[in-house]
Amino acid sequence: MKKILFTLIVLSFVYNGINSQTQSHNLMPVPGKLKFTGKKFRINENFKAGITGGSSIRVEKGVNRMLKRLAGRTGLFFENPFVLKGINEDSVDMSVSFADSVKVKLFMDEAYGLNVSENKITLSARSDIGILRGLETLLQLMDSDSAGYYFHGVKINDAPRFPWRGLMIDVCRHFMPIDVIYRNLDAMAAVKMNVLHLHLSEDQGFRIECKTFPKLHLKASDGFYFTQEQIKDIIKYADERGIRVVPEFDIPGHATSWLVAYPEYASMPGPYKLQRGWGIFDPVFDPTKEQTYEFFDEFFKEMTALFPDDYFHIGGDENNGKHWKANERIQKFMNEHGFESTSELQAYFNKKISKILSKYNKNMIGWDEILEPGIPKNIVIQSWRGKEGLIKAARNGYYAILSNGYYIDLIQPTDFHYLNDPLPEDIELTDDEKKYVLGGEATMWSEFVSPETIDSRIWPRTAAIAERLWSPQHVKNIDDMYRRLETVSFRLEELGVTHIKNYGMMLRRLTNNQDISALKTLVDVLEPVKIYKRNSLRRHFQQSPLTRVVDAARPDQKVARIFRKKVVEFVSTNDIKIRNFIEDKLKIWSNNHSKVEKLSERSPVLNEIIPQSKNLRDISTIGLQAIDFIKNKNVPSAEWIDLAKKIIEKAKLPVAQTELMIVEGIEKLVETVLN
Amino acid sequence: MKKILFTLIVLSFVYNGINSQTQSHNLMPVPGKLKFTGKKFRINENFKAGITGGSSIRVEKGVNRMLKRLAGRTGLFFENPFVLKGINEDSVDMSVSFADSVKVKLFMDEAYGLNVSENKITLSARSDIGILRGLETLLQLMDSDSAGYYFHGVKINDAPRFPWRGLMIDVCRHFMPIDVIYRNLDAMAAVKMNVLHLHLSEDQGFRIECKTFPKLHLKASDGFYFTQEQIKDIIKYADERGIRVVPEFDIPGHATSWLVAYPEYASMPGPYKLQRGWGIFDPVFDPTKEQTYEFFDEFFKEMTALFPDDYFHIGGDENNGKHWKANERIQKFMNEHGFESTSELQAYFNKKISKILSKYNKNMIGWDEILEPGIPKNIVIQSWRGKEGLIKAARNGYYAILSNGYYIDLIQPTDFHYLNDPLPEDIELTDDEKKYVLGGEATMWSEFVSPETIDSRIWPRTAAIAERLWSPQHVKNIDDMYRRLETVSFRLEELGVTHIKNYGMMLRRLTNNQDISALKTLVDVLEPVKIYKRNSLRRHFQQSPLTRVVDAARPDQKVARIFRKKVVEFVSTNDIKIRNFIEDKLKIWSNNHSKVEKLSERSPVLNEIIPQSKNLRDISTIGLQAIDFIKNKNVPSAEWIDLAKKIIEKAKLPVAQTELMIVEGIEKLVETVLN
Repeated sequence: MKKILFTLIVLSFVYNGINSQTQSHNLMPVPGKLKFTGKKFRINENFKAGITGGSSIRVEKGVNRMLKRLAGRTGLFFENPFVLKGINEDSVDMSVSFADSVKVKLFMDEAYGLNVSENKITLSARSDIGILRGLETLLQLMDSDSAGYYFHGVKINDAPRFPWRGLMIDVCRHFMPIDVIYRNLDAMAAVKMNVLHLHLSEDQGFRIECKTFPKLHLKASDGFYFTQEQIKDIIKYADERGIRVVPEFDIPGHATSWLVAYPEYASMPGPYKLQRGWGIFDPVFDPTKEQTYEFFDEFFKEMTALFPDDYFHIGGDENNGKHWKANERIQKFMNEHGFESTSELQAYFNKKISKILSKYNKNMIGWDEILEPGIPKNIVIQSWRGKEGLIKAARNGYYAILSNGYYIDLIQPTDFHYLNDPLPEDIELTDDEKKYVLGGEATMWSEFVSPETIDSRIWPRTAAIAERLWSPQHVKNIDDMYRRLETVSFRLEELGVTHIKNYGMMLRRLTNNQDISALKTLVDVLEPVKIYKRNSLRRHFQQSPLTRVVDAARPDQKVARIFRKKVVEFVSTNDIKIRNFIEDKLKIWSNNHSKVEKLSERSPVLNEIIPQSKNLRDISTIGLQAIDFIKNKNVPSAEWIDLAKKIIEKAKLPVAQTELMIVEGIEKLVETVLN
Repeated sequence: MKKILFTLIVLSFVYNGINSQTQSHNLMPVPGKLKFTGKKFRINENFKAGITGGSSIRVEKGVNRMLKRLAGRTGLFFENPFVLKGINEDSVDMSVSFADSVKVKLFMDEAYGLNVSENKITLSARSDIGILRGLETLLQLMDSDSAGYYFHGVKINDAPRFPWRGLMIDVCRHFMPIDVIYRNLDAMAAVKMNVLHLHLSEDQGFRIECKTFPKLHLKASDGFYFTQEQIKDIIKYADERGIRVVPEFDIPGHATSWLVAYPEYASMPGPYKLQRGWGIFDPVFDPTKEQTYEFFDEFFKEMTALFPDDYFHIGGDENNGKHWKANERIQKFMNEHGFESTSELQAYFNKKISKILSKYNKNMIGWDEILEPGIPKNIVIQSWRGKEGLIKAARNGYYAILSNGYYIDLIQPTDFHYLNDPLPEDIELTDDEKKYVLGGEATMWSEFVSPETIDSRIWPRTAAIAERLWSPQHVKNIDDMYRRLETVSFRLEELGVTHIKNYGMMLRRLTNNQDISALKTLVDVLEPVKIYKRNSLRRHFQQSPLTRVVDAARPDQKVARIFRKKVVEFVSTNDIKIRNFIEDKLKIWSNNHSKVEKLSERSPVLNEIIPQSKNLRDISTIGLQAIDFIKNKNVPSAEWIDLAKKIIEKAKLPVAQTELMIVEGIEKLVETVLN
């Protein structure tokens, strides 16, 4: 590869933080340094992009994909739909140059400079990965007016705040085929994420072909696993997008599937059966036998050769220690070693595992629980139980990433995740200690998602997490985040992500192919129950349907969110336009129930949601009456107040694992009447 | 495998053809013998399905998939979500039994018997493939009423009319990744198709990894090809669904990609470049060199080992012979052998190729053109240019399949394909000759489809072709086909097929995320230009956008089709309800243009369709006026008649490669006024 002299191109202007904040744009994550020039670079069919410095198949493919997406959005028939190579800067409209093609790894260089003037686009970086990040920024700068399509004129100098910006996908509770992984890698790249963490083993299934111990995938997967060829394809696909792939094999607990295949390494005698439901289970590896470590040595030998990343995740979470306590031989071993708790035994296990991984040139990463005295310093802690784990790790000189607050399976709103900063201003860490905080990972646990619904749980909320991990700390305006998220979410569809289109599909199935509009009106204001409430429904398990209203309903429903916001605005301003908006919504909702009921006649799967549909009708009626009281400055009767409160309390209860997301708004209206 | 005594279970009742025709059901393809009992088998969470005879992983997985789809539709949490094995017939609700697990191949046994009574479902077959076919029938028998979900009581004895019911997918003009193949295999299985024909080499790309001649996929694919592991996965996936995979390597013409990699086998000196556009190209293998056959011998040795099917497709179409005529040495060769035409030289080539394939135990299949004197009798002719090829083949004792009339890339309406019978009653073949007609294949050429749009070109029309090839000849009521197709199409969504959901997605992109309803109103009555008209636009090529209105518009648009039908009904009946329906539509259309125009302001990609939107407005206005004339029995002025004719003629012209599909209806209204 020819080395070229590299200088970041955007140096001459004074950055203006206010400018980048006030100019309305659709960039997500917001670049580190950004200045809009007010100029427009017009896109037409003669548009020519060329690599004018550096050589990298990643960049070639990246620019080609960029051109294809641009053609897809604009309908333009580019005369040069492939990137030009070895070409002079003056003969192209867009010049791409970089110094090195680098390895995808932690601390890789992702910085880039992007300069869009009226007649020239210059994208430069030290590494080819930086170029990929810049190409995504450029695509987000595309806009249109009556004269056609253009890129906004900008001067950008950009680099990530954190080097570890990940998404974990649990392919165990429900297996996710390779196309789910591909499209999510594309989406991750679009928002500059750089780590795909694959959770590959669980109580419910072992999801990767193992040649050394083939019973793992043959006996403990129900036939749902990635072949090693598929894993190689995933790694290549990710690498081309500048994304690392970190595998996780969860041990010593969460281990039922391993022990279905090889019960000889268990702490209690087998045989074992795959878990079908959810929860924390007892089966656990026996850490006292040398054979267990011989097994892992051979297993890791194979798997570390397959996954090129320097980091290797061994889970380590939620071992309840029951089987260790129940086994006399293990108890004896603990006594002999002076271990007072099963955590100490697990620390012993982790140290031995870490040694094996070191032998294969891997650094260990694990959940909170692995941070026990004596664990070597080359590990990374993934903090999930709270921020304490992260802080403790950093103070003790361990690298750490944050996942607590990024549990996207828990159906919390986007702004909650968005404001969850790994290093908030008030964090009690010294500057030196802060350097140990590498970033974070959104975690997509898959108890309640299928290949049909998983995208809607990941996107668009994860784009906001991506911004938190990339953009400067001060970028945290929630309204602006939601505004930009709208466009980002829409654009993700071009990458095949199904979070929008599967909504209609699921409603069609739920209505049995009737007109979906009434059901949509209802589900638009429903969300699945939050946190671990859905788990409490014991009948749920691996083969249960994930096609019900609760599954169609998406997190952070926009219609409900806007309604709540408008109510807040209305009660403080008494603005008539806002009141009309609210009344229009309430009227639609109060008239919707009979339609849903009619739909259910030809679709019994809707029966379970009928009480929720009634709640919507009743609570909207209360809302309309409350507005009337406010409008006419009337005082409601005691009976009405009683009724209103009753209806509100009832509407707060989940129905068929869904929550009605406008109750808070109605409650506010009623409170306003009472004050 | 334990052999069990097998008897078809449904023998005792008298089949009633009229019964099966008059009872409204959603079966497609319609079974050979079908009787509804009027009873209902209620589905609840205790539903138990078991294999009571036979052993086959195909059936196990098949029943599990069936249960999963059933749960998905009904929201039921089955207590037994997996099929029970080795179980007594009395202890299950649904008993599945069969004699043999068979090889997926031509003439495999696909017959089954299905008996649904009030409290028992019995599915039996000689082969496990027959069971798979029966499972799909059972899923189509699912229905619901206010009491919940049930299967219709039936007695069915079913077997296909033709043994070869295929879908060809061209993965060359535009590459189709493996998930496109998977979901289409699922959809094929749902309508009982049994051959996936993969068109793997073309002028535009070579789409499969070749270990013997790696330059084929490395130099002539732009990186878009199936690895052999992926091909194995596809074959396995297809096999589990009772579907054969027939590979096609198109030679000696359509061969540019081969010659990019290995120009030494070309008829003219290289180097060659991949074709980017569409058409018939000159590059062709040199059939006079022994090395050419040595090359193919090695190539086929590798590929025949990869593909287990007995049939191997060598294309053989559209060789224009130009390079053969231009090469003196080839001309000399022809003279020496007494070949008077390049067809004769190609026949010589084919015979030699056929011999190589025989060596590897494969029967050759090729397009029409390969039927030349002296070609061995073990070949199959795929008739694409007309039915003559099929007839000629059958008369001469060659097996043949029909594709002429099943070219789904040509955007013709469903009923056209549906009525295209490989063996119509009036065909001039003896009963013995008819046996040589094996069935047919829908052909999905991919010049104008992307992974986003291909499903909408294949489905649902191919379901009607599947019925033509499976069901008895007399099943050909078009209205009933369209009625059933509606449900079949809707149900295909559960298999991941994107023909419905990508419509909305594409309209969202086209509107730049504005409200799509006005654009949908327009595109609902547009179809892409038919036959080869789109080809004539020379600027189209491999990297061109396939995201325009013409791509969002689907074949056989339902709204337009129903409108045309209603107009025919109206002019013959003068029915007021129908007139109101027509007027309502026309009013919506005549008021739609300003909305589309407004959308285009924020989405320049819509500019090209503005004239079509105006056409819709203008022609609908004419339609409304025509109805007024009819209503009021008024006579229009000569000016109006002139204007109406002008507007109609204008609206017949394609705009941006789309056709307005209601023109015929409006023309009929105007004619009615004039008569």
